[in-house]
Amino acid sequence: MPLTTIGPDGEAITLRRAVAADVHGIVALLAADRLRAAVESTAEIDRAGYERAFHAIDNDPAHLLVVGTDAGGAVVATMQLTFLPGLARAGATRLQIEAVRVHSDLRGRGIGGAMIEWAVDEGRRRGVTLVQLTSDRSRTEAHRFYERLGFEQSHTGFKLAL
Amino acid sequence: MPLTTIGPDGEAITLRRAVAADVHGIVALLAADRLRAAVESTAEIDRAGYERAFHAIDNDPAHLLVVGTDAGGAVVATMQLTFLPGLARAGATRLQIEAVRVHSDLRGRGIGGAMIEWAVDEGRRRGVTLVQLTSDRSRTEAHRFYERLGFEQSHTGFKLAL
Repeated sequence: MPLTTIGPDGEAITLRRAVAADVHGIVALLAADRLRAAVESTAEIDRAGYERAFHAIDNDPAHLLVVGTDAGGAVVATMQLTFLPGLARAGATRLQIEAVRVHSDLRGRGIGGAMIEWAVDEGRRRGVTLVQLTSDRSRTEAHRFYERLGFEQSHTGFKLAL
Repeated sequence: MPLTTIGPDGEAITLRRAVAADVHGIVALLAADRLRAAVESTAEIDRAGYERAFHAIDNDPAHLLVVGTDAGGAVVATMQLTFLPGLARAGATRLQIEAVRVHSDLRGRGIGGAMIEWAVDEGRRRGVTLVQLTSDRSRTEAHRFYERLGFEQSHTGFKLAL
């Protein structure tokens, strides 16, 4: 069942909850990213890790893994939404957005913006009062994109690889 | 059951999973923070929102809300750990750390550092390959603290209040 259809600039991209059969298409989008190419792989040998991760996401109602498909059904966009309860900010539920990707052939057409706007609306429907995400410091274009959508660059994001 | 006891500089702080009776003590720590004082309240009228949030955290095994208590049992520290599955980075599970607070009387004694180190070890035990957190851009002391612990300031954190 589609979540919504977004159609900026005449594209008709259907957003829906991801199913197991979408994993390969999602990983292909992740692997096409210049910052991540070295750590993602669509090779058969690596499939088990991705499938395990998919089921962990899919089995917890706190997560919503979204794909965007084109008219032919191909996975051309993805994002992962997580609804995080917390005590801070008067017990606010936060929506965290991760792993946002749009196929390189379809960029600059407003698809990413329409996806984020849908995510923010979905957050509102679920009572979220804060939406948060991080973006690699080198992705300056992405930073302008999120600022145009109303996000504030208020935090510094730290990572520790184990 | 304690998770561990941390004793830098002779303090004996017990870390354990938070229970409902700790909520007031945790909120008092959150409310004492200079950046959050305006949005947190220990007043009776606001208790329901915090208790609802506590139960949402407590009911999902993806979360571990931790308190640190002193020898008298008072809540003097807190942090929230969330284990996040994702497809990115070869299906990595991430540990996200939020709402880290140590009572102002006990700062500078290594308690925060020992808490983060315990959290990172707990992440390793659960198969995490990436630990992540964000810190308000104005908290420059906290940024040095996380860098000393091995974290890399690799990302920009965006927030959108709804």
